[in-house]
Amino acid sequence: MAEDKKKVEAITDMSVDFAQWYTDVVLKAELIDYTSVKGCMVIKPQGYAIWELIQKQLDAEFKKTGVENVYLPMFIPESLLQKEKDHVEGFAPEVAWVTHGGLEPLQERLCVRPTSETLFCDFYANEIHSYRDLPKVYNQWCSVVRWEKTTRPFLRSREFLWQEGHTAHATAEDAEARTIQMLNVYADFCENVLAIPVIKGRKTDKEKFAGAVATYTIEALMHDGKALQSGTSHNFGDGFAKAFGIQYASKENKMEYVHQTSWGMTTRLIGAIIMVHGDNSGLVLPPRVAPTQVMIIPIQQKKEGVLDKAFELKDRLSNFRVKVDDTDKSPGWKFSEQEMRGIPIRIEIGPRDIENNKAIIARRDTGEKIEINLDNLETEVATVLDKIQVEMLERARAHREEHTYSATTYEEFLDILENKPGFVKAMWCGEEECENKIKEDASATSRCMPFEQEKLSDKCVCCGKPAKAMVYWGKAY
Amino acid sequence: MAEDKKKVEAITDMSVDFAQWYTDVVLKAELIDYTSVKGCMVIKPQGYAIWELIQKQLDAEFKKTGVENVYLPMFIPESLLQKEKDHVEGFAPEVAWVTHGGLEPLQERLCVRPTSETLFCDFYANEIHSYRDLPKVYNQWCSVVRWEKTTRPFLRSREFLWQEGHTAHATAEDAEARTIQMLNVYADFCENVLAIPVIKGRKTDKEKFAGAVATYTIEALMHDGKALQSGTSHNFGDGFAKAFGIQYASKENKMEYVHQTSWGMTTRLIGAIIMVHGDNSGLVLPPRVAPTQVMIIPIQQKKEGVLDKAFELKDRLSNFRVKVDDTDKSPGWKFSEQEMRGIPIRIEIGPRDIENNKAIIARRDTGEKIEINLDNLETEVATVLDKIQVEMLERARAHREEHTYSATTYEEFLDILENKPGFVKAMWCGEEECENKIKEDASATSRCMPFEQEKLSDKCVCCGKPAKAMVYWGKAY
Repeated sequence: MAEDKKKVEAITDMSVDFAQWYTDVVLKAELIDYTSVKGCMVIKPQGYAIWELIQKQLDAEFKKTGVENVYLPMFIPESLLQKEKDHVEGFAPEVAWVTHGGLEPLQERLCVRPTSETLFCDFYANEIHSYRDLPKVYNQWCSVVRWEKTTRPFLRSREFLWQEGHTAHATAEDAEARTIQMLNVYADFCENVLAIPVIKGRKTDKEKFAGAVATYTIEALMHDGKALQSGTSHNFGDGFAKAFGIQYASKENKMEYVHQTSWGMTTRLIGAIIMVHGDNSGLVLPPRVAPTQVMIIPIQQKKEGVLDKAFELKDRLSNFRVKVDDTDKSPGWKFSEQEMRGIPIRIEIGPRDIENNKAIIARRDTGEKIEINLDNLETEVATVLDKIQVEMLERARAHREEHTYSATTYEEFLDILENKPGFVKAMWCGEEECENKIKEDASATSRCMPFEQEKLSDKCVCCGKPAKAMVYWGKAY
Repeated sequence: MAEDKKKVEAITDMSVDFAQWYTDVVLKAELIDYTSVKGCMVIKPQGYAIWELIQKQLDAEFKKTGVENVYLPMFIPESLLQKEKDHVEGFAPEVAWVTHGGLEPLQERLCVRPTSETLFCDFYANEIHSYRDLPKVYNQWCSVVRWEKTTRPFLRSREFLWQEGHTAHATAEDAEARTIQMLNVYADFCENVLAIPVIKGRKTDKEKFAGAVATYTIEALMHDGKALQSGTSHNFGDGFAKAFGIQYASKENKMEYVHQTSWGMTTRLIGAIIMVHGDNSGLVLPPRVAPTQVMIIPIQQKKEGVLDKAFELKDRLSNFRVKVDDTDKSPGWKFSEQEMRGIPIRIEIGPRDIENNKAIIARRDTGEKIEINLDNLETEVATVLDKIQVEMLERARAHREEHTYSATTYEEFLDILENKPGFVKAMWCGEEECENKIKEDASATSRCMPFEQEKLSDKCVCCGKPAKAMVYWGKAY
């Protein structure tokens, strides 16, 4: 039992050391394990099941908008990667190179895809000939590799899982509309499924994707006041199309270049769930991505009828993801484990409850205990799960609002960045020099120029020149 | 319209050139495209949607048996690959090596996984300590790389998609039971979902997996009489456990080695579907893996009410995967395209049908046309789809039976292998020399020692020594 106790012992307090708290939760909730391959992780069943729920629900949203799934090779010939200049400059320093196949050296090096714009372009150049071939709205679920120097589970690893959508359109307007459409799909998904509120906006040129005309982003605020870029959607204009020769014959039989987009979300979202919702007892999962939504824990389970009743309740809750913990561990241990794993609802049922036709529902997110009449089990569980889903989003939004500041002077701006973790809204002149100075002075970056602009002043918070946009600034993962 | 015609022009006759017929179908049914990476393919929407249906249904069967999904890294350090001697000898000649990460050479080469036994062993050595940690029944869906010299879409490519299950058990009996259990899951899946009958059996030592004690296989017969290994399940005994030090404390507190299995199925199954069911009009998909099960093709669609009616039928068939082809192509072109894509049912609906409250159901597999009363649409479609699913399996089984022979003399054996494409059942002494001789004389391999043994004679068909088992022999993909 020594081993058992170890599992539920207190994790690091998040207010003492947030980074260590994060690592503790990731390991003790059994989401990942480290591996012999530096910077790569094993995603364990508890972690992968969250990803499966993300995939399933996000994929369904994609398909509603006409997305079709495909699979492209994991290798990119070096010559292909080099076709678009900005793109290769952005990615070449962080790719893994395959130089040998079997016992022979390759004639040309292949990189393991860090992202697949170049492969999709090569593919589209073969596929697209006429306006009737457009649009192409393809997506793939796969893993990608970026040779990062410092890594953290889910947040930054050398290999990670993601989806990458790549589209081709007849006009610039169609491409822009798809870019924004997918950003909205991402934002709605974060809010409705992950209970994570996000700021939608546009990246500055300094922060945009290598090769993009415009990058749009959704930015979330973690519990420690740091920002996490949670999904991006890029409009490429016709830059890649020109580099790869992707042309179509228009209705007027003129050759035109296509306009392209790409958009991606990753296993990083699991890191976001942990850091937005988790607490000092471990993970807290929103019901819609909880692999187990209800854990039934029998009390005095050796007494006749208790286990039978527990399984009877499970059967009645077949519309939900439910388990019974009938192991021979103590109820206290089981409570701790269920809390560590972030299971939204615990149902406690013992001999006295059975006698009174009652049970206790304990909410993971608030700790609230609710006595219910067993006749109403199904509706009570449905109601509480819905309530948890809604209130988790509300709490996360309230936390973000409390940690979002405005600054109009540089002193105020730096003071907030140093002393008040969170987002800082401030005006910006549009020059990269100011972004560089702010990074140097305060280790903060421009997170985005939000779609919902406010005019806080006329002047750039940094240089005092006329302002062009309001920007969300922050320290970021 | 020249382009349109090209798409539906006759594919190569399968009796003239089966290999070319296969390539034509793969391309013209729009399942794949070739890429700039030799030996790697793009799986296009029509192909990937079949894989998604395979994944969904196979994964559900796995989960019923307690399988949990995980994700392990795509890279294997060279030292890890080398830990199990037979395994590295089997795979080292055909792996791709990563030697550089970013701009720097790696300290140790990493191979791109050809299969993940070594990674799972490394993981299990960390995870398994006590009998209470067993069994581990994990699976992952991913892509793997094998640097093949000659490649063919779906059948043999340098990168392919698959699932690989890896389990660890307390006893040899438990491992053997899981090995057989998964082989049965595979066999049932092939028959019930893909409508492909399979022979279940054990591989000879020569044909078994590198590092396995026993490899079990399901073998299917393609339309051209060649065999296709369609799924394998391996029992590793404790060989990997000893190489990787995977031990657990038993109930009696003794340290014991675990016993392991692995099992896999791949995108090769799509090749099997094509080659078992396809015909000279293209692909023929069993309803359970058809991305579109019913294509509604309006006749004289410009006449008032026809398109409305077509979409009304689609709405009524919401329990099925249904599309309406409302493009401006001719009905004949639409028929050909629907046939090329293997869509099981076509519904033809025109003004006269509407007047009479009728429609025509055309079966893709037999060409049969059935006039139905529209009042019974839903039940008729359900009935016909069920019938197609059942009869496709029956036809494939009949084809296999017609192309399965027995031989008791070597002359007869060689004659069959030369002149009658199919399986040949014959007795075998158990020696690899006979397998080698047969390969040399007839380019045939032992496909498996079937679980259902028959005693055709006392003697090995090749050397005449006492026979140990009946073997299915054949030429194989």
